[in-house]
Amino acid sequence: MHLSTLLFAIEVGGIVAFAMSGLIEAMRKRMDVVGVFSVAFVSAFGGGTVRDLLLDRRPLFWIEHEPYLWLVLAMAVTAPLWLPMALRETGARLMVVADACGLGLFAISGTSIAASAGMSPLVSALMGATTAIVGGVARDVLCNEVPQVYRDHRPYALCALAGSAAYLGLMALGTGSQWASLAGVLVATGSRLLAVVLDWQLPSWNPRQP
Amino acid sequence: MHLSTLLFAIEVGGIVAFAMSGLIEAMRKRMDVVGVFSVAFVSAFGGGTVRDLLLDRRPLFWIEHEPYLWLVLAMAVTAPLWLPMALRETGARLMVVADACGLGLFAISGTSIAASAGMSPLVSALMGATTAIVGGVARDVLCNEVPQVYRDHRPYALCALAGSAAYLGLMALGTGSQWASLAGVLVATGSRLLAVVLDWQLPSWNPRQP
Amino acid sequence: MHLSTLLFAIEVGGIVAFAMSGLIEAMRKRMDVVGVFSVAFVSAFGGGTVRDLLLDRRPLFWIEHEPYLWLVLAMAVTAPLWLPMALRETGARLMVVADACGLGLFAISGTSIAASAGMSPLVSALMGATTAIVGGVARDVLCNEVPQVYRDHRPYALCALAGSAAYLGLMALGTGSQWASLAGVLVATGSRLLAVVLDWQLPSWNPRQP
Repeated sequence: MHLSTLLFAIEVGGIVAFAMSGLIEAMRKRMDVVGVFSVAFVSAFGGGTVRDLLLDRRPLFWIEHEPYLWLVLAMAVTAPLWLPMALRETGARLMVVADACGLGLFAISGTSIAASAGMSPLVSALMGATTAIVGGVARDVLCNEVPQVYRDHRPYALCALAGSAAYLGLMALGTGSQWASLAGVLVATGSRLLAVVLDWQLPSWNPRQP
Repeated sequence: MHLSTLLFAIEVGGIVAFAMSGLIEAMRKRMDVVGVFSVAFVSAFGGGTVRDLLLDRRPLFWIEHEPYLWLVLAMAVTAPLWLPMALRETGARLMVVADACGLGLFAISGTSIAASAGMSPLVSALMGATTAIVGGVARDVLCNEVPQVYRDHRPYALCALAGSAAYLGLMALGTGSQWASLAGVLVATGSRLLAVVLDWQLPSWNPRQP
Repeated sequence: MHLSTLLFAIEVGGIVAFAMSGLIEAMRKRMDVVGVFSVAFVSAFGGGTVRDLLLDRRPLFWIEHEPYLWLVLAMAVTAPLWLPMALRETGARLMVVADACGLGLFAISGTSIAASAGMSPLVSALMGATTAIVGGVARDVLCNEVPQVYRDHRPYALCALAGSAAYLGLMALGTGSQWASLAGVLVATGSRLLAVVLDWQLPSWNPRQP
């Protein structure tokens, strides 16, 4: 399989995984079809949209790649048919994997877009993390919850940052951008999967018990 | 009455209706004058602002038409004088009508602006719905509620999409933009009023009972 | 001390104060390190970022002044070491003062940036208030609370508006921009400190008891 085909497949997998997390949350809140589509849309495209707004890039990536939009629309409309299946155990495991792939791809695409727009390494890495996590944050805000990524105490954004660091480091060493991208995605996605499997915990920042 | 005067009157009616919905919500939450103005402002201008940001249009529409800003400011400051009256039954009915007019006008103005910026029909219709509903979504997020438009199970955004489809269809058939706009507003506003009067229900997307 | 040094010191003080308010809120919600940094970041930079997006200014101010970013990052990482101290009484008082300084500086910087971009006085004053309060609003939305600035019934945004009005009035009278800025900051910060010390109350907008 060619590298660009692989990256495209991962990107679609990430959009599907992020949209699915939105579908599940919206259904738990018993939203109607409009709410379900809106939350799925925001989950899948929110991070990249905020990145594009902050960097002043147009057209937005989901306007440039309109099939992504049709994909999420189709998922929302057909959700009652397949979502119960996806919620069973095998589906839930598949979703963790898809979500980790989305995390890695979104982090590296955000980082590389920012770096090629002339941003510093710190800002580029933050743009990668923004692309990866803001969709989930917006999903939880619309569902009236404290964002899960801020309180689940397992590394998620940190995996995105690790992947971005790997990508930026390899680019600085002169590695070709395709190999640096692949390594970055592998670091982000792999560390996330390890964190889930091994149940790594982040300390909470508790002012009462310093 | 001339067509453009009619459209202007509807637009002002929509801003008044959306601002009023924000005033009512903010007062229910016992906010102070700053909260009341902010929520009214976001309810009235949030949808169009997000549309303008996504399409990269400047100046924003409420900066271009500053009297709209003074109108909402005046409404927030004088609200204690007239709002109790507006909450009685006749006022509540009037507000449903004004809100439906606002829905139609905002949907068509958003759709036509996006279409004339070269967006595809799907993106244009989504921009119309965004213009019509994001103000209400932002109002509910600021008031710490799950957005009403996502959970009331009566068609609202779908009416906006129906109006946008009518507008885009007529434009594709070569109808003049004024007539297509009028037809689109009538479809969106009319279907919303019918939905309220006849109490149409949308199914909820419930994963437990598929 | 030179005037520009003074203004720089106040700006850093404002960022520190706003970031600290985010750190405290995020810790109360028992967020992890990612949540703590994100909320601190949004509290400190959210207002200016929204202002820059609305006015279409790039690079964003925290991208232009990257040391601000490192400052907030360092604060989030080291928070467990010093935050308990900052929460004691002397620290709390210091924070009120720093927050009031931040309010004044952010209000005047927002107003002057908008005015020099050709905005009207009303829009410029609103941009000043936006710069000063949106960070705190976004912090509270992320922490799933009704924004404090909308419901604490003590003047905050109004102090920002008073400072902006003083700045715009002096500029219209031909005062040099440095003196007008200083006067605006003093009015905003001073009125806020007075409001806290004298416990000024704003009326709530209550539809039941008009």
